[in-house]
Amino acid sequence: MAALVPESSTKYSVSIIGASGYSGAELTRLLLLHPNVELQELYAFSQAGKRVSELYPLLSCDKLYKPYSGETESDVYFLALPHGEALQLVPPLVEAGKTVIDLSGDFRLKSVIEHEQFYKQTKSSDSVMTYGMAELFRDEIIKAKAISNPGCFATSIILGVAPLFSSNEGGIKVRAINCTSTSGISGAGRSSKTELSFSEMSENVRAYKVGVHQHIPEIMQALGTSASNPSFDFTFTPMIGSLVRGIYSILNVQLESSLDVERIKVLYHRFYPKKRTPFVRVRDAMTEVRHVAHTNFCDIHIAHATATGSLVIVTAIDNLLKGAAGQAVQNMNLMLDLGETTGLSF
Amino acid sequence: MAALVPESSTKYSVSIIGASGYSGAELTRLLLLHPNVELQELYAFSQAGKRVSELYPLLSCDKLYKPYSGETESDVYFLALPHGEALQLVPPLVEAGKTVIDLSGDFRLKSVIEHEQFYKQTKSSDSVMTYGMAELFRDEIIKAKAISNPGCFATSIILGVAPLFSSNEGGIKVRAINCTSTSGISGAGRSSKTELSFSEMSENVRAYKVGVHQHIPEIMQALGTSASNPSFDFTFTPMIGSLVRGIYSILNVQLESSLDVERIKVLYHRFYPKKRTPFVRVRDAMTEVRHVAHTNFCDIHIAHATATGSLVIVTAIDNLLKGAAGQAVQNMNLMLDLGETTGLSF
Amino acid sequence: MAALVPESSTKYSVSIIGASGYSGAELTRLLLLHPNVELQELYAFSQAGKRVSELYPLLSCDKLYKPYSGETESDVYFLALPHGEALQLVPPLVEAGKTVIDLSGDFRLKSVIEHEQFYKQTKSSDSVMTYGMAELFRDEIIKAKAISNPGCFATSIILGVAPLFSSNEGGIKVRAINCTSTSGISGAGRSSKTELSFSEMSENVRAYKVGVHQHIPEIMQALGTSASNPSFDFTFTPMIGSLVRGIYSILNVQLESSLDVERIKVLYHRFYPKKRTPFVRVRDAMTEVRHVAHTNFCDIHIAHATATGSLVIVTAIDNLLKGAAGQAVQNMNLMLDLGETTGLSF
Amino acid sequence: MAALVPESSTKYSVSIIGASGYSGAELTRLLLLHPNVELQELYAFSQAGKRVSELYPLLSCDKLYKPYSGETESDVYFLALPHGEALQLVPPLVEAGKTVIDLSGDFRLKSVIEHEQFYKQTKSSDSVMTYGMAELFRDEIIKAKAISNPGCFATSIILGVAPLFSSNEGGIKVRAINCTSTSGISGAGRSSKTELSFSEMSENVRAYKVGVHQHIPEIMQALGTSASNPSFDFTFTPMIGSLVRGIYSILNVQLESSLDVERIKVLYHRFYPKKRTPFVRVRDAMTEVRHVAHTNFCDIHIAHATATGSLVIVTAIDNLLKGAAGQAVQNMNLMLDLGETTGLSF
Repeated sequence: MAALVPESSTKYSVSIIGASGYSGAELTRLLLLHPNVELQELYAFSQAGKRVSELYPLLSCDKLYKPYSGETESDVYFLALPHGEALQLVPPLVEAGKTVIDLSGDFRLKSVIEHEQFYKQTKSSDSVMTYGMAELFRDEIIKAKAISNPGCFATSIILGVAPLFSSNEGGIKVRAINCTSTSGISGAGRSSKTELSFSEMSENVRAYKVGVHQHIPEIMQALGTSASNPSFDFTFTPMIGSLVRGIYSILNVQLESSLDVERIKVLYHRFYPKKRTPFVRVRDAMTEVRHVAHTNFCDIHIAHATATGSLVIVTAIDNLLKGAAGQAVQNMNLMLDLGETTGLSF
Repeated sequence: MAALVPESSTKYSVSIIGASGYSGAELTRLLLLHPNVELQELYAFSQAGKRVSELYPLLSCDKLYKPYSGETESDVYFLALPHGEALQLVPPLVEAGKTVIDLSGDFRLKSVIEHEQFYKQTKSSDSVMTYGMAELFRDEIIKAKAISNPGCFATSIILGVAPLFSSNEGGIKVRAINCTSTSGISGAGRSSKTELSFSEMSENVRAYKVGVHQHIPEIMQALGTSASNPSFDFTFTPMIGSLVRGIYSILNVQLESSLDVERIKVLYHRFYPKKRTPFVRVRDAMTEVRHVAHTNFCDIHIAHATATGSLVIVTAIDNLLKGAAGQAVQNMNLMLDLGETTGLSF
Repeated sequence: MAALVPESSTKYSVSIIGASGYSGAELTRLLLLHPNVELQELYAFSQAGKRVSELYPLLSCDKLYKPYSGETESDVYFLALPHGEALQLVPPLVEAGKTVIDLSGDFRLKSVIEHEQFYKQTKSSDSVMTYGMAELFRDEIIKAKAISNPGCFATSIILGVAPLFSSNEGGIKVRAINCTSTSGISGAGRSSKTELSFSEMSENVRAYKVGVHQHIPEIMQALGTSASNPSFDFTFTPMIGSLVRGIYSILNVQLESSLDVERIKVLYHRFYPKKRTPFVRVRDAMTEVRHVAHTNFCDIHIAHATATGSLVIVTAIDNLLKGAAGQAVQNMNLMLDLGETTGLSF
Repeated sequence: MAALVPESSTKYSVSIIGASGYSGAELTRLLLLHPNVELQELYAFSQAGKRVSELYPLLSCDKLYKPYSGETESDVYFLALPHGEALQLVPPLVEAGKTVIDLSGDFRLKSVIEHEQFYKQTKSSDSVMTYGMAELFRDEIIKAKAISNPGCFATSIILGVAPLFSSNEGGIKVRAINCTSTSGISGAGRSSKTELSFSEMSENVRAYKVGVHQHIPEIMQALGTSASNPSFDFTFTPMIGSLVRGIYSILNVQLESSLDVERIKVLYHRFYPKKRTPFVRVRDAMTEVRHVAHTNFCDIHIAHATATGSLVIVTAIDNLLKGAAGQAVQNMNLMLDLGETTGLSF
C-alpha cells in the first residue's frame, strides 16, 4: 500500500452536499482523515440542524448538517444525493470553477433516452460528465473538473469484464454476459422501508429489478456499446442478501471461441498492472466479500472456463468504498494530483 | 411431546383482530394447523384488502384482511393490536359471551396508576383480565372467558424466578433481581423504523427503555408485589441484538441467604413438574436461543450460585411463540379443554 | 394447506442411519411428528452414545444415537450419510425388502464415469436407484422400493427449468443455462471448519466448486442429457452466504428463440398444476428465501424474458426440507401411499 | 481525533509473536499503517510458511509467517498467543531490553493462586507486568518496558465502573456489581469449533463460564480488591451473540446510598476528561456496538439510577481494538512517546 506520508502538503477546502446518507457518512469519514483535506461544510436537507455525531456516533464529529442554498466557498464539492437532485445543483458549481464529484446517476449516461427509460426521470439536456472509473479513464479524470462517479454494481461488473473488451485483444469476441450480483443492504441507503428491516432481511436473499436496473445502460456504455443497440446479449440480476456492505458479482461470459484460464489470467494481469491500478487485485484464489470489506479494493478471480467459450469471473468490492465514497476520493486524488491512494489505505 | 391426535374433535370458529403484524401472522400459522380450529376472519386495519399470501407468502393462505367493525360471529377472538387499541374492542366481545384472548398490555395491570405511568396512556377503569400464564395460574385460566396474554420479556423473567417466590418455600427471601434480556428484533413488530433496518441492526446490540419498560409492573404484579411499592429491588435492562426471534434473559438474583445450585435445581424441578407444565424445561446444560426458536418451550438453567446468596438464572423463549402467539394458543387450549399442547408440537 | 387428518392410520417403524447431522436432525424432527411413523432407531457413528437432546435440545427427544451394524428390524430406512458411506449399506437393506430412501449422492448417477469424476470416489457398479423428485417422476416413485433423494442445489435448479424441457413443448429449445445459487451454510453440514465459522461467514458471500460441483451431472441427467455429452451449454456457480437455511437460484436460460413472460407462465402453470404438485408454487411476485424457509415449498418466479430469448427464472427452497429431509418424507409418503403432504404442513 | 501528522518521525522495528490469530491480524493491520513502525517479523506456529495474504487477503501483505525461535532483533515485541504460551517467551525479551506488550492473561494477575484457579494453569512465579490500561495507569505505562495488555471483557467493565472507585469520591461505596456482557464471536479466536460455526451461532445468544471467567480476578484487582477476598459482591455473565466484533456490557451496580444520574455524569466527566483519555467517550445518548465497531473507543452511558442506589451503566468497545490490538498499540505509543492516538484514528 502507499505510504501514509502525503505526496502533497496542500490543503483543499471540501464540502459534501447530501452528507447524511450512508455514502455521505462514509465520505465524511474518509475526508476527516485525508491529509490534504479541510472538511468545511456538510449539507443535508432532512437532517439539517442535527450534528454528525447524533446520526453517526462512530464518527466522533460535532459538525452541524446544514441545508444547501447555493454556497460555493469550498474548493471541492462532493454530491451524494438521491438520483435527480444533482441535476440542478451541479451546473452552477461547475461554472464557478469548482472541482465537482457527483455520486448519483444524473450525469452518467450520454443517451437522454436511456436515462429517462432507466431512471424514470425527465432530463432536459444530454449533459454528461467524465466517467470516474480510474482504471479505464485515468487520463480523462486527471484533466476533468467534474466527474460522474460510477454506480456500485456497475463498478463490480465493468472492472470484471473490461479486459475482454480491450482494443488490444483482437481475437476475443464477447457474445453474451449474464451477471448475478449480491449487494449489501446499505446499497439501498439509510432506509426506513419495512422490506429492508432486520426482521425481513436476516437469513434472506431477494432479487429485484431483474433486467431493468439503471446500471445496465451505464455498464453497456462503459464497455463501448449501448443498452438500446447492444453488441452482445446482456442480462443483469441484482440481489440483496443478509449483509450490510459489499457487492459480489458472478459474471457468466460467453465468448465466440474458447480461451483457457491461464490465457485469461495473463490478459487480466496485463490489463491491470499492479502499479497503475493500485486498487484492482487479480487473485488466483477465490475472492469473498470479507476480503474487500472496509477497503477500496476490487478483487477479480477467474473461476472457470470451458471448451465452449463459457467463462465465470467473480468480483468483490465494498459498495460504500470502491462502489461509492472510496472511488470518489480516488477521483479527487487524481483530479488534484494528490497521489491516487492518499487517504485510502485502511 | 403430546400426540398429534386431537384430544377433542370439536371445531371452534376463530378470528384474529390485528392479524397482519408478526404476532398476528404467527397466530394465523398456528391456527391454520390447529385441529380444533376453523379460522374464520383475519381483521387488520392498515393492510385491509390485501391477501395473507401477499404479506406472508410463507403462509400459503389466500384469506383477505378485513377492517374490523364489531363482528361477533366467531366463537373465539384473539386480539394482537398495538397497546391501547384493545381497550374499547374487548368489552363488547366479552359481553357477547365470546372466548377472548388479548395479546396487548391493555388488561394486564391491576393498578391504573402503574398502567398510565408505564404505558403513557389514559385508562379510565381498572379493568383487568385473568393473566394467561398457565404455569402459574392454570386453574383461573381454565375457568376464564377472557385472558390477558403475558408480555414476552415478562414471560421469560417471571418463569425464571417464580419458584423462588413460591409460598411453599418459606426459607427463601429475595432481596434484589437485576434482569438483562436480549430480544429478537421481531419483538418490535413489523416495522419501518430506520433504527430497526438491517443496515443498523446487523452486528449490533442496543439497550433501550432501561428501568422504564412497561413489563416491569407486570413482572412485579405476577410475583406478588408491585412496581410502586416493591418488596425487593428490581432493575430491568431490555436489549435488542442481531437476531429475529427469541428472548434470552440473564436473571441476577440476590437472596437474603445463600442456597447451593443443587438445592435450587430441586426446588425448580418440584415447582415445574414435567407433566403439568409441558412447555417449561429446567435444563442441566446451558440453554441458548436456538434451543427454543420456533417452539413453545421456556428453557431454564441455574447457572451460578455464590456463598453470598447471588444466583444467576438463564432463560430462553421464542418471543413470537411462548412470548406471544404460542402462549395464546396454549391459553385457548386450556379455556376450551382441548389439551394444553394441541397444535403446539413442532 | 393439506389437512392434518392422516389419510391412513397405519403406523410404520422407521429408522435413520446417519441421524446426527443437520439433515438427519431435520428428518428426526419430521418423523417424530409424522402420524404414520413410529421412530425406532437413530444410528450415528461419531455421536453414538449421546442423546438426541444433547446435540439438539430443540428436539426434546431422549433417544440414544447408536452405531449401525446391519440391523433390519424397521420397515423403513432413511440414510443421511456423507457421500460414499451408503454404497455398502443400502444393498442389504434392499435385499431384506425394506423401504429405503438414501439422501446421499451415492445412487443418483447412471454414469459410473461421471460419478467417479464428480464425487472423486471409486464406484464398482452402476447401481442407481429411482430418482426421488416427485414432481417429475411420481409414478416411478410410487412403485419403487428404494429411492435416491435429489441434491439440494439440483432440486432448486431442475424444478426451475424442467417445464422448458417438457416433451409436450416442441417449439422450445434450450441453448444454454447459467445458474448461480446461494445456499445457506447448513448445506455444508454440522461442521467444524474454520472457513464456516461465524466469524468468517457473517456478512460474507463466497463462491466455490465453480463448474465442478457434483450436482452438475445430476441436473443434466434429470433434464434428459448428460454432463459428458450435453445437449446445451451449462454452467453452475454455487455460493454460500450469511444465512443458515435456504437455496436461492438465479437461472439464466438462453432459448433458441424468444418467448414472452406470459407464455412462459402459462407453460409453467400447465406443467405444475396445483393439485398434483402440492409443493411447487409458481408465483407472480418475486420470491425470497424467507418465503420458503421452514417449509417444503419450491417457489418459482419468471423474472425476465428478452426479445433475444434470454430468460431469468428465480427459485427458492429450504435446503434442509425440500432440498433434503422434507423431500425424503414426501418420497416415503408416496412409496407407502400415506398422502403426499402428510407430516409436511408447517 | 488526533491529527494524522506523526508526533515523532522515529521508526521502530516491530515484530509480532502469534500473528496469525484474529488479534494478531488486527495488530498486523494497525502496525502496517502506523507511521512510526517498520513491521519486521510475523511469527506464527501452526501457520508458519503461509503468507499473510493467504489467511487474510484483506491485508494485502505478502510477508511470510515464521516459527519463533528466540529472535531479539526488533525494538518492540507484541505477543498475541493463547494463554500460557507467553510465560516462557517474555522473560528473555525483557532481559534483552526489548519493549514488550503481551496480550495474553499470563502476566495480569498478582496472585498466583487466583491465576492457577481461573486459568487452570500452573504458574511457578508471581511475575506480573504493568497493567496496560492507560486511562487508569498512564504514568506507570509511560515508564514501563513490559506491559500486560488488559482482557477484552475486563476493559469494558473496568472502564465502566472505575470512576465509582476513585479515591477522590469518598462518599460513594459500591456494595455489589452484576455484569452481563455480550461479546462478538471473534473473541473466541480463529476457531474451528462446531459450536462457533455460522449454522450454530446465527440468530443465537449463549452464556458461558458464568461466574468462573478468567477476567473476574483481573477486574477485581484493577478495582483495588481481589476475587478471593472481595470488598463488594461481584457476578459476571459473559455471553456470545450473533455478531463478530464488539463487547456490550450492562453493569448493574448497587451503591450503599443512592446517587442521581446527573451527579454520576459529573463524576464520570471529571474522571475521564476528554483530552487525557482520548478514547473514552461518556455519552448522553444510549451507546450501541455499531458506534464503536472498528474504532478504539470505549463508550460509556449512564442509563439508569434508582432511589435505592441501583445504577445501570452501559459500555461498548470493539473487542479486537480497544479490547486487544488497539489498546496494545495505544500502550506502545505511550511507552515510546509517540502520541497516544497515533495510528489509531479510523
